[in-house]
Formats: sequence, structure tokens, C-alpha cells
Amino acid sequence: MPLWGGRFEGGPAEEMQAFSESLSVDLEMVDEDIEASLAHVTMLGEAGLVPAAEVEVLRQGLVRVREELADQTYRPGVEREDIHMAVEARLIELVGEAGGRLHTARSRNDQVATDVRLWLKRRLTALDEALERLIKVLLQRVKNDGRTLLPGFTHLQRGQPIWLGHHLLAHAWHLLRDRDRVRDARTRADLCPLGAGAMAGTPHPIDRTRTAEILGFRGIVPNAMDAVSSRDHEMEAVSACAILMVHLSRMAEELVLWSSAEFAFARLGEAWSTGSSIMPQKRNPDAAELVRGKTGRVLGNLQALMVMTKGLPLAYNRDLQEDRHALFDALTTTLACVRVTAGMWESLEVRRERYAQALEGDFLLATELADHLVEQGVPFREAHHAAGRLVAWCEARGGDFRLLTPEILQQHHPAFGPESLTVLDPVAAVERRRSAGGTAWTEVEAQAAALEAALG
Amino acid sequence: MPLWGGRFEGGPAEEMQAFSESLSVDLEMVDEDIEASLAHVTMLGEAGLVPAAEVEVLRQGLVRVREELADQTYRPGVEREDIHMAVEARLIELVGEAGGRLHTARSRNDQVATDVRLWLKRRLTALDEALERLIKVLLQRVKNDGRTLLPGFTHLQRGQPIWLGHHLLAHAWHLLRDRDRVRDARTRADLCPLGAGAMAGTPHPIDRTRTAEILGFRGIVPNAMDAVSSRDHEMEAVSACAILMVHLSRMAEELVLWSSAEFAFARLGEAWSTGSSIMPQKRNPDAAELVRGKTGRVLGNLQALMVMTKGLPLAYNRDLQEDRHALFDALTTTLACVRVTAGMWESLEVRRERYAQALEGDFLLATELADHLVEQGVPFREAHHAAGRLVAWCEARGGDFRLLTPEILQQHHPAFGPESLTVLDPVAAVERRRSAGGTAWTEVEAQAAALEAALG
Amino acid sequence: MPLWGGRFEGGPAEEMQAFSESLSVDLEMVDEDIEASLAHVTMLGEAGLVPAAEVEVLRQGLVRVREELADQTYRPGVEREDIHMAVEARLIELVGEAGGRLHTARSRNDQVATDVRLWLKRRLTALDEALERLIKVLLQRVKNDGRTLLPGFTHLQRGQPIWLGHHLLAHAWHLLRDRDRVRDARTRADLCPLGAGAMAGTPHPIDRTRTAEILGFRGIVPNAMDAVSSRDHEMEAVSACAILMVHLSRMAEELVLWSSAEFAFARLGEAWSTGSSIMPQKRNPDAAELVRGKTGRVLGNLQALMVMTKGLPLAYNRDLQEDRHALFDALTTTLACVRVTAGMWESLEVRRERYAQALEGDFLLATELADHLVEQGVPFREAHHAAGRLVAWCEARGGDFRLLTPEILQQHHPAFGPESLTVLDPVAAVERRRSAGGTAWTEVEAQAAALEAALG
Amino acid sequence: MPLWGGRFEGGPAEEMQAFSESLSVDLEMVDEDIEASLAHVTMLGEAGLVPAAEVEVLRQGLVRVREELADQTYRPGVEREDIHMAVEARLIELVGEAGGRLHTARSRNDQVATDVRLWLKRRLTALDEALERLIKVLLQRVKNDGRTLLPGFTHLQRGQPIWLGHHLLAHAWHLLRDRDRVRDARTRADLCPLGAGAMAGTPHPIDRTRTAEILGFRGIVPNAMDAVSSRDHEMEAVSACAILMVHLSRMAEELVLWSSAEFAFARLGEAWSTGSSIMPQKRNPDAAELVRGKTGRVLGNLQALMVMTKGLPLAYNRDLQEDRHALFDALTTTLACVRVTAGMWESLEVRRERYAQALEGDFLLATELADHLVEQGVPFREAHHAAGRLVAWCEARGGDFRLLTPEILQQHHPAFGPESLTVLDPVAAVERRRSAGGTAWTEVEAQAAALEAALG
Repeated sequence: MPLWGGRFEGGPAEEMQAFSESLSVDLEMVDEDIEASLAHVTMLGEAGLVPAAEVEVLRQGLVRVREELADQTYRPGVEREDIHMAVEARLIELVGEAGGRLHTARSRNDQVATDVRLWLKRRLTALDEALERLIKVLLQRVKNDGRTLLPGFTHLQRGQPIWLGHHLLAHAWHLLRDRDRVRDARTRADLCPLGAGAMAGTPHPIDRTRTAEILGFRGIVPNAMDAVSSRDHEMEAVSACAILMVHLSRMAEELVLWSSAEFAFARLGEAWSTGSSIMPQKRNPDAAELVRGKTGRVLGNLQALMVMTKGLPLAYNRDLQEDRHALFDALTTTLACVRVTAGMWESLEVRRERYAQALEGDFLLATELADHLVEQGVPFREAHHAAGRLVAWCEARGGDFRLLTPEILQQHHPAFGPESLTVLDPVAAVERRRSAGGTAWTEVEAQAAALEAALG
Repeated sequence: MPLWGGRFEGGPAEEMQAFSESLSVDLEMVDEDIEASLAHVTMLGEAGLVPAAEVEVLRQGLVRVREELADQTYRPGVEREDIHMAVEARLIELVGEAGGRLHTARSRNDQVATDVRLWLKRRLTALDEALERLIKVLLQRVKNDGRTLLPGFTHLQRGQPIWLGHHLLAHAWHLLRDRDRVRDARTRADLCPLGAGAMAGTPHPIDRTRTAEILGFRGIVPNAMDAVSSRDHEMEAVSACAILMVHLSRMAEELVLWSSAEFAFARLGEAWSTGSSIMPQKRNPDAAELVRGKTGRVLGNLQALMVMTKGLPLAYNRDLQEDRHALFDALTTTLACVRVTAGMWESLEVRRERYAQALEGDFLLATELADHLVEQGVPFREAHHAAGRLVAWCEARGGDFRLLTPEILQQHHPAFGPESLTVLDPVAAVERRRSAGGTAWTEVEAQAAALEAALG
Repeated sequence: MPLWGGRFEGGPAEEMQAFSESLSVDLEMVDEDIEASLAHVTMLGEAGLVPAAEVEVLRQGLVRVREELADQTYRPGVEREDIHMAVEARLIELVGEAGGRLHTARSRNDQVATDVRLWLKRRLTALDEALERLIKVLLQRVKNDGRTLLPGFTHLQRGQPIWLGHHLLAHAWHLLRDRDRVRDARTRADLCPLGAGAMAGTPHPIDRTRTAEILGFRGIVPNAMDAVSSRDHEMEAVSACAILMVHLSRMAEELVLWSSAEFAFARLGEAWSTGSSIMPQKRNPDAAELVRGKTGRVLGNLQALMVMTKGLPLAYNRDLQEDRHALFDALTTTLACVRVTAGMWESLEVRRERYAQALEGDFLLATELADHLVEQGVPFREAHHAAGRLVAWCEARGGDFRLLTPEILQQHHPAFGPESLTVLDPVAAVERRRSAGGTAWTEVEAQAAALEAALG
Repeated sequence: MPLWGGRFEGGPAEEMQAFSESLSVDLEMVDEDIEASLAHVTMLGEAGLVPAAEVEVLRQGLVRVREELADQTYRPGVEREDIHMAVEARLIELVGEAGGRLHTARSRNDQVATDVRLWLKRRLTALDEALERLIKVLLQRVKNDGRTLLPGFTHLQRGQPIWLGHHLLAHAWHLLRDRDRVRDARTRADLCPLGAGAMAGTPHPIDRTRTAEILGFRGIVPNAMDAVSSRDHEMEAVSACAILMVHLSRMAEELVLWSSAEFAFARLGEAWSTGSSIMPQKRNPDAAELVRGKTGRVLGNLQALMVMTKGLPLAYNRDLQEDRHALFDALTTTLACVRVTAGMWESLEVRRERYAQALEGDFLLATELADHLVEQGVPFREAHHAAGRLVAWCEARGGDFRLLTPEILQQHHPAFGPESLTVLDPVAAVERRRSAGGTAWTEVEAQAAALEAALG
């Protein structure tokens, strides 16, 4: 018979116990649960709600339960329902009647809300740090390999030449905003629900601010019903994870592309690759693929949380118990993916010579011709058209821009002059793009410095 | 160093091993993996690809590995990556060089696809049976309590009186279609990928049809690339689960509503309820809430599978390893929810008298007045308007239809006659609806018989 | 032949034009597109890239195109692809060759990114204001009807009595956090991409800061690739909308419940209800149901955006064009739902007497008995059990707490005294809960004041 | 005042009208609505519920309303709420009192359910046909270009050589299953709800089977509540669309990859490509990118439908009105994507020589070496390891398999013989894979024949 069974004749069906227990998931936050109980007991003592002697008994008992759970000498079964009941039941076994005072002025509703917020805050902090490291890894790459020539792609077609550094910083700025979202989520989650009771507060003279302080929260949730029934801090955190995973999936896609024999622009370290059970030559970018694949998982977790909460009347409903399954998986998965992405980028071997010559004569320099005409006063649309016709002219001859001569240029537009061909140099093309945020190296360096400053 | 490590200098990073392993998930399908290997070995022997003596050695070795995994005397670590490598590595330890023949004419790509399909087929069969039982529980309810008066709701407003049996059969027909979708998913999944190799088939003279036959598949997947890279059978199965969960969530919502003090129409058995840690009187319909909440989880799983597969080029990509996390959780969760729903309906106490008197005079009989006028030849729209005005007349006087007299009726429409008030009887109103599929008891019985026949 | 057609022999297939056009969606942001072009032209003039005379011609032409689009004298067909090409093409028709200078130092990639951010900022501002109004409507309700007795529900079972004001403030605090998320999303979106060009910046000496200033952005996007390829500001905004919709769906669910004959706690104004085509008595809470139903739509939009972006390599890919379909629908739907929710709450008639007597003797007062024992020094768990047994005792007799006498209490626990029954008064029970954030009226007033202060 | 306004004093607020109307979406199914009304009227006449003369008046009136809506001489405003009310109101204007008989024995609940099913059946039929055409386009490609050498990829790394035909058939088999799912969805949707009334049937002696027959349904929905409240046929149809879109996204991804300068394996026709507003050389695979991007949209639609329906009690709730927004968009989008994919594949130029020489010496032939050893009796795992070491040996020398000599082979494994190098021919490697479903040309032809037969 459960601890709450006073009004019941029998207990729940065995199938019901197995179906409704959350112990297996809760073990993830056993430290947070004990910590919150310790703070609660301290406050109860200070408020005179539990005698000092019993406070000490309860504290020692709780520490003991934590140890027993850690070394698995206490292994609660599903009949304990959840971590809160498992701890309280063992505590009563250990310390007797005084254990029955632990749940004074508290409900499982506010208790679990507190545990989850404590857990969430820590994981968001870890995510913040992991993101910072990943951004730093990228910045280091910019320093080491940033001045490597690369085609900038749109539609996966070669568009304009760029420095690799310009490309990497685009990812890094994405990640900086992800970090800011993670921090915002942490700030909004950083309020303590403990003391809200079932939903209405309690008649006992507790001090919610004190418990919040002991647990390191920046304040208390101002409304008791809100405290036990809201899950938006979880949705916001998982939403930040999902957006971040979308970003990581884009980086992962590029690592997969670049590792292909066709792109051949980079090679993952062996430590982040695996082989094939059947094809002996394979060295697969598995880590990148897994990051990309796990994006679906985190998006699914976000959806699960939102669907779970949709249409629920206040206050607590048991549906909300399902939150931890999605929340824990989302945060844990995302954190691992950020770390693995940092590892991949650290181990990456960039093939710096890959595009050094390959872009000579490539049509990705066509914009140079158009921009050159614009500098001669030709309206852009007309210049664009002339450059397009030059591409068609070369293609019709099965070649590239290396076929062009000053005469051919002149035939296509009178504003072309004898020196016009000089614009068809990839590195010069990169260096010309000095507008703010452009790919010229000075701009790349300025962006990197700004990003470093923003990292704090 | 992994078994595939011939071309590698070092092994994967420890963090990579932890990140990429699927062993912890794969243990769910260890039986299917060994079973598929046994079938493969048998076929290799019959095809002359492995000598008969070694076939026997391999078979005994595989059976031994299965035992060791079952009693946990063999506990593979994450460095084994997945269940396939864990089994093969242990087999080689046990039987020596012969173990190296197991992977002849096989890749992990076709092997895992085979394991998952075997697993999936079994769970879909279990789901089929669980649905059949649930439908039968509902049919039994119809027999026992079907003739209980209930307001039929639209917009959660009382609409027209119905028999509970009519209501329950609506759910039962939903579930019958769910069963059909589950069966269709099973049929489409029931083809064997084994022998597809990495994606291109194999030069060895294997007999794919034979392996399929041993494993109980109805045939083989006709194209080797399709065999290793498609996951639509998983998406279809989880989609069937998701639609089913949406249906269960609707039943669960009603159980929650009906269990409230306000509706007070039914009471879940104690075996499917739980109490509160703080409020001593509580008897909560937790099982129903959990079913409703888990709907989000299965919808999330569906999304995860689809997002994972979106945009992947052929053939196998490591992203696809993530499928099992979502697939296993979806099937396991859905199966538990169907069973729990059956348990709840079996235990349900219907308060048969709840609405017996409460609907006398209730405005939900207004349609009776309109339909009565239509029978007198009044156009429906005019009749509807007259009945609406009678509602307004009663409400203005703070009462209900019990205020009506033949004179009042006449004042609102001349086609009302002295006998018109007799239509305002809820049971008579129910019994009048004899159109096909209507709520009259004869129709309910006909529906139940049709459903029973469809169950087969 | 499109404006970009220089290198093409033929144009796109008709089916391709219909498939790929975004004009029908873009018309939503035509004002933003013209506004951004006007700012771009001004900057080009100031930077000396377009002669002053032509600047004026371009400006007048753009204003003219805006008028023609507004009064539909210019109706671009799908062969114009998108709003940018439609405007530029018409401009060239109107002003001749000078029109060809408009696209100098600009790509559609940075242009559309700018348009969308302008549009998004405005809608987020409107959402911020609508949320503020909704919160104020709720605060007004608290003032007018806040001291109405209501059962606080958990599991949709009566839990503890509360003031309606306490309940409403729980929703209001949810919404305040939603407002903060909306504001954070706005701040992060408030950077100008214009001048990023296709992805690499431009060789022309443009002044990106100047354009940003004219358009009212707080700064520029620091990296050109990031500027054209990121969509996280959209995902974040829609994510904030989705969380908000989940909150609105919970309020909507309660309005539907409370409007039912069974709860009968409130009634929506006629202005927000509708009738039935067949059942004359119906007055349905349609507005609330639609808000609840549209939650799915916004969750779907969020998923669409995330799935669309998953796994895309940098920089722009045409997939990203699909963003507007989801983004526009999400913001527009959410804004309408917030406004309608405010309208519903303004029109709501609370039935203040509904629970005034109904809660006398109700078991939802059981916690009072337990808390009372705790005040006498009884450990909570023991007190909880005694109160639970009292519930069972009354239920066994088919009654409620009005059956209790001091003697009965004493039989269940010796710490009960002659005065103990006085705790079984619902209003007193509410007023006892004076812990921070509790339901006592002083606490409700304190919460309301804090919320009002937070609104600013 | 709406037609249902008898019990109301005022009408809905203007904002409510705009919020709740579905007319703008319903116009998509105006033909189906009129068609269903015509069938209903015919049945009412045959059943003697409407006099023959009035039946004719109603029929002519309905035809007239359809014409007026088609040529837009009748443009109903939002105060008409939906297509049903718009038609009935105009009918009454046109034919007077008789128009009021149209809604006899019918509710909007069963009417809209009927309209949507009619609409859905037609679109599923169109989708079935479009899929058949796409599969035939692929089969034609197999005939024309199927014997083109291509690396089979796993992890986007070259795995084993294959024929393009083998690859294309993998997609074609995916699509065949999609077609089967579309057909199953159509069959399950093909039951007529008309005559279910609001949820309980009707007291009038209607003939539901007759209406179903006129409208071409294969039968009637057996339960009236099920008929008006279920949406699983919509979820199933959109789920089939979503899975299909995932498949199209995979084909689209490959088209994008193959169109890149790096892969350079194929080129989309100009009719399915577009250019850049700024980069004159661009010829982008936009159609493929849009198909890939629209996958998110359809996944979002699926989610929207499921979330909308989750947790709704029976029977009709206004939430369900939102179904059409998602359903119509999903079917329309998917149909367009299937057609566009067929167009792209028809226009595709395969660069048949791309890999003809490029694969000589490529490590993707390493499996040949391993399989060759297996044929000499070497256990596979040992053979795999030897081949892996040969790859490492070549790589260490900066070369590929063209460096190998019989002596080098021998040094790595004694079972290699003088003839072993002959296995390193890509075309021979392809042709060796003659296992069922393998890539050898005879197998490709057998698969194509089987697929053609399955198409029927």
C-alpha cells in the first residue's frame, strides 16, 4: 500500500504500477531530489515547524538514503512509484516516525518541479560551457586554416570564392545565438517552486525565499498554481536545444559532404570515424552522421513536450510526468552532440590545396565580371546579363573562363577594357569583398575579434 | 581495435565509442539478432558456402552466446559498438577461426534491417491482439451498460441524448480501423532484407528465399539498396501507433472528464487510480492521464523517425541507427497504453442513474421539437428557428423545457399540436433515431454485431 | 525570360514557374520589400554608387510600384517568381535603364532576409502588445471576480479550494513569460542582413550600418554568410508562438469545461459563441475550441521550419523559401488567438454562486484536517493517513464531511479536538494559505501587484 | 443573424466572424459540397421527405448556386461562416421557403465530413496516378541509362560499384509502397458519413445507402458518432503523404548532390532550374531543393492534424474545423511534388562517362579483394582484414589500387594468387553481384520486370 493510501482499500494493479512508475527515469535526478529535501528540512527547522533534534535526524537520514541509492544497497521497486516516495519510504524505515515530518508543507507537485528545475539549470550551464568550447575550437580553426580558399556555395552550386574562415564564422555566430538562448532559458527556469504545495500554498509559516536561497535559485515562482503546472521553461530549453541541433545538423552535413571522395575537402580524424563490417576500405564520418540523425530525436522531444501539455487544464495533471522522458533525453543528447562536434572539428584535417588551383577559370568568378562592369558605370542588371552570356559562350565551347580574351569580353560588352581579365583571380575576388561582414581577410579577422569579445 | 579495423591505425576515441554505440538499445532485439544469424548460417551451409561441420560449430556457438547474454555472463562493453559486433566477437572467442565465417555474404546493413523487421513484426502482432482484446472489452461494456442514458456532446455542450452503447461503439470502430492499419503495416514490413549485403548484393551463391523462409517472412525485399536504406515500414508502423494513440487520448480524456465530480458519470477502479501525497481524499484517474500524456511521446517518435530520414541520400547512412530508439519506444509505449486502456474499461464503474432524470426538460431535447415540426411539413430551417426561440423563452424565465405547455408551443409555431410535448422524453428521443448507424437500441445492436463480425 | 536569364537558352517550364513562385506568399510583405529598397537606394546615393538624379528617379519609381501593387493596377504573374523580381521588373518598365541599378551590391538572398526580419519585428511587436492587453484583461478579472470560490483541480479532481483570482494569475504569469520570450526573439531578430550580397559581401563601398539605421534595426548581422543562410530567428519566434499557443490551449480547455452544463461555472458572451445548424438550443464555445485547435497548426509550423532547415549546407538553399509559409501563418494565427482570448475573457460571465455552497462538506477539504493535525504536532504522513481514513468512512456511508462529528474525528486520531471541525470551511481554508504565492486573498493581491509592476 | 440564430439575441462579434470562418478554405471543396447536397436532395425526394416538385426546385437552385460561385457572381462574406451556410443561405434567397428543406435530416457535422471525404478520395486517386507516372519515368530511365557505372554510396563514401539502374529501382520500390499506402488510405476513407446528423442519426426515414451510392462511396460509416468525429482517415492520408515526401526528399537530395560541380554526375534540364539575381553563372537545382524543403511543410501538416485531434472528447468539436487547412495543403503540396519530381527525372541529363574511368583503382573495390579471398576458403573476417591492410598500404604511398602487384597481394595474404588482380575491375565487380536483388544487370532487369508487373 503506498504512503498516500489512507482512503484506498486496495493498491494499484501490478500492471498499473509498471505503467505509471517514473522511478526508472527519476534516478537521473536523485541528487537533486535529496538536495531539495535537505534544504526543505533546514527551512522547516528554522521556521520552527520541525524540532531541531528531528531536523538533524532527518538530515542524516537523507544523506544515508543518498548513499544507499548511490551504492545501490537500496534499490526501490516500482511499487514506490517515483523517487520522492522511494526516498520518503526508506527514510521512515531508517529514522522512524520523524521521517513522517519530511513531507510537511510540501507536495510531490512542487517537489518534482523543484528537482527538475535544479537538474535543468545544471545541464543548461553545461551546455553553455560546451558551446563556448565549440566556438573556441572554431575560432582556433579560423586562425589555423581560415585563409584556405573555398567555393562559397548556394544551392550546393559554386557561387563565389570565399575564405574558409568566413564560412566557419557563419557557424560560430549561429552558435553564439544558441548560447544566448540557452542562457535566457536558464534565467527563466531559475525560480524555485518549492513551497507551492499541491497548488494553493500552505497554511504553515514556511519561508520559500530561504529554501530558494539554499538551493541557489535567483528567486521564487510567484504563484503556487503556476509553480506546479507550468512546463514552459522545459519547452523553452528543449526548443533552444532543437534550434541548436538544427545548426549542428548543418555543420554535420558539411562534414559529410567534405569527407566524400567527390568534395575531398577535409578528412575527419580516425578517432571520429568508423569502418565497415563488409567494405574494408571504408572510413566513414559516422560521428557527423549521428549528430545529424539525432536532430530528429531532439525535434521529437520538443514535439512530445508540447503535445503533452496542450489542452491540459490547471493545475497538475499526471500527463506532466512524461516531461522528464523528453527533457532528459533532449538535454543529454544535445550536450553530447555539441561535445562531439567540437571533437570532430579539432581532429579535422583540412586539405588546403584542394581548391587552390581548381577555382582558376571557374564560373564562380562570373560575379566579378558583372561587378567590374558596374564599376565602369553599367547598370547592374545589364552587367549581370553580359556576364551570363559570357558563361554561355564558354560552355558552348566546352570550356571555362580561361577561354576568355579581352576581345571576347569586348564583343559581349563595350565597357570591358584590356585589363578586365585581371578580375578573374579567385584570391583577388575574395579580397575585394571588403564590405562589412564580407569575406576579405581583414573582415574575417574583424568578425573573429567581435565574436571573441562577445564570448566574454 | 574493432573487427573492421584493418585499414585503421588507431581506434575511435572513447567519447566517440560512447556516442556511437547502439548496444544499450540493441539488447531489446538480441533474440532476433541471434535468430537471424542462425538462419543465415543454416543457409550458408546448405549453399555450400560453409562446411557442414563448421555450420554446427557456428550454430552451437551462437546458442551459447545467446545464453551468455541472457544470463549476463557475457556483458559486452561499448567498444563492441552494436549487438552484431558483440555477438560476432564473442563467437570468435568461443569457437575460434570458424567464427570469422559468420559474416560471409552479409553486412551489418542487411543484418540490422532484418533484426528490426523481425522485432517489428512481433510487436505489431502483439498490438493487433491487444487491440482485439480492447474492442472486445468495449463490446462487453455495450452489452452490460450500453442502454445507459447519456447526453451526446458536441463542443462539450449537451447535444442530443444517446445510449452509452452508441458512444462506445464510435470508439470501437476507430480501433478496428487502427487494427487494420497495424495489419497493413505488418504486411508491408514482412519481407526479408537478409542477403542484400552492403547495398549491392553479393557475389556468393546465397539463397535469400531460403533465409526468408526460415525466419517466417512472406518473401524477400526485391532490391538490395532498398533493403538496407528504406525505413518507411518503420514510419508506417509508428504512424499507425500515433493515430491509435490519438484515439486512446480521446478515450482517456473522456475517462478523466467522467471521473470528475462535475460529470460524475463513471469511476475508475482503484487498481487504475492513485492517491495524492498531500491531499488525502484524492482518487485520481492517473492511468487515463498517462495514456493521454504518452500520446505526445509517440507523436514525437514519429517525428523523430521522419526527420531522421529526410534528405538522406542512398544507401545506408549512420543517421539511420537512431531509428531503433524511436521505433522501440513507440511500439512499446503504444502496446502498454492499449492494454492499460482495456484494463481501465474493464474496471470502470458506470453510474447508470447519473443522467436518467437529469435530462428531463434539458434543452438537449430541442432538436426533437424541430424534427417534430418537420414531420408536420414545416421546412427544417423554419422549425429549427421556432425551437430555438422556445429555448430562449425558457431561459429568459430561468427554467427549462418543463415550463412548456401546449399553449406556449402554439404561440411559437402554429404547427405544434396538443400532443407535441410528448416528444420531450429523452429515452423516446433516443429510440426515434433509427436511421442506419443511429443511436436507437436496435441500431446499436446491429452495429455491435457488424463490429463483432468484422473482428473475425 | 527572367531577369537572371543571361546564361539560359529557355525559361523554366510553366509547371516549374507555378511550383517555385513565392509571389502569392510574398504579397504579405510587399511594404517591407519596397521600404528596404528605398533604404538601399538612399544608401547607394549617399555612397556615390548611384548618381543623385537617378536616386530620385528610383525612389519615385518604387513609390509608384507600391501604389500600383496596393490598388492592384499592377498584378504580377507567377513568371515574376517573387516579390523582388516583380518590383524590379516593373520599376524598369516605369523608369527605364536606371531601374537596372537598383540591384547594385545586393542579392535576393540578403534582400529577402531583410524583408522577413522587418515583417517579423513588426508582428512580434504586435504580439507583445496583444499579450500585454490580455494580461491586463485577466488582471481586471481578478479585480472584479477574483474573490469567487472555486475548487482548485489536480487530475481534474477537486483538490483544494482556491480563489478564482489565484487561478487566473497562474495563467497571467505564464503569459508574462511568453511576452518576455517574444521580446527576446525580437531583440535577436533585430539585426540587418542587407549588404551581405549572395553570401560573401560586395566589392562596392556600401555602408551597411546606414541602411540598418534607416530601417530601424539596432545593428547589422556581422557575417554575410550567416546573414543569408540562418533562420534561427524565425525558429525562435515561432517557438515562442508555439509555447504561447500551448498556454492559450490550456485556457481554452478550461473555458470549454467551464461552459459545459456539468461544470456550469462560466458562460462565454454570445459574441464569442455560435449555434448549431441542427440543434436549436446550442450555444457553443467555438472561439475557445478554435484557439485550442489552432495550437496544432502553430506546432506544425514550428516543425515545418525546423525540418526544412535540418541538414542544409551553407549558404542559401532554395528550401529556405518555404520559411515564409510557416512563419507568416504562425505569427498571424498566434496574434489572432491572443486577441480572441482577450475578447473571450472580457465577455465572460462568471457564475459566482456556482461553488459558494457546493463545496461545503466536499472532500477537497481533507487536506485541512491533515494540516490541522500537523499543527497539533502529528507527523504529516500520519496526519495524511488519518484524514484519508475519514474520507473512506464518509464514503462508505454515502455521504461527505457533513457527516463528521467531533467524536468521529477523535475515533480516527486522538489529536483531533472539539474545535477541529471548524477547519472544514472552504473560505477559511482558502484564507489560511498565506505562504508566499498562496491562494489567500492578501497573497493574490500581492501577486497581482507584482505582475502589474512587471508589465511595466 | 446566422441561420442557426433562433436562440440568440445578437450575432457573433465581427472579430469572431473573421476568426471562425472557414469559407476561404472551404472554397476548395465547393464542388463536393454541392454534389453532396444534390445527392441528399435526391434521396430526400425518393424517401418521400421532400415533395417531388420541391426536389426539382432545390436541384435547380443548387446548380444555380454552383454557377454563381464558379463565376463569382455570388461572393459570400465571412458572416456566412462556411460553405454550407453560404450555399443554403443563397439557395433560400433564390428559391424561397423550399430552400429551408435542404437541411432536413442533416447536420453540418455529417455534411462537412462527406465533402472532405469526397475531396480526399479524388486527390488520393490523383496521387495514385501521379505516382504511377513517376515510377514509369524511373523505369524508362533504367532502360535508357540504367547501365551507367556509379559508385554505390554508404555514409556518402564510395562503397561498391553499381549500375545506375540498381540505384533508381531502389527509389522506385519505395514509391510503389507509397502508392499502396495511398490506396489503402483511399479505401479506408471511402465510406459515406451523410445521414449521421449531429451524432445520433435522425428520426426521419432516410436511406443512407442510397446517398452513398449516388456519391460513389463503397458503403456507409456504420456509427453516426464515428462518422462526424473521426479524422483518422485524414491522418492516415497525410501520413502516407509525409512518408512519400521523405522519399522524395531523398531523391531530391541526390539530384542536388549530382548537380554539384563536385559530383557532376547529372544536370537538371533548364526547365527545372533557375538562375541567380546576382551570380550570372548560376544554374540551380531549385525544383529539387523546393521538393526537399516542402517535406517540412507536409510533416508539419501531419503534426497539426494529430495535435488538433489529441485529447478531444466525442463527438464533434470546433477544433476539427482546422483539419482542412492542413489536409488540403498536404495533399496539394505532395501531388505537386510528385509531378515535379517526374518532370525533373524526365529532363535529367546523366553524364554517363563521369565514373566510367574514375573508379579504376578506387578503394571502393576493396570488397572484391575480400570476397575473392573468401572464395579461396579464407574466413570472411580474416579476408576483410587483409583487404583493409591493402588499402592502408596504398594510402600510405599516396596512391590507389593501381599500385598493387601480385607480389604486394601475396605479402598481405598467401591465398592471393597471380590472377587475383583481375577482380579489381568495376564493371566485373558489378556483374558478379548476381544474388537476388543484387546489382548485376540481369538482376536489375528482373527487378524492373517485377516492378512493372506490380504496377499492374
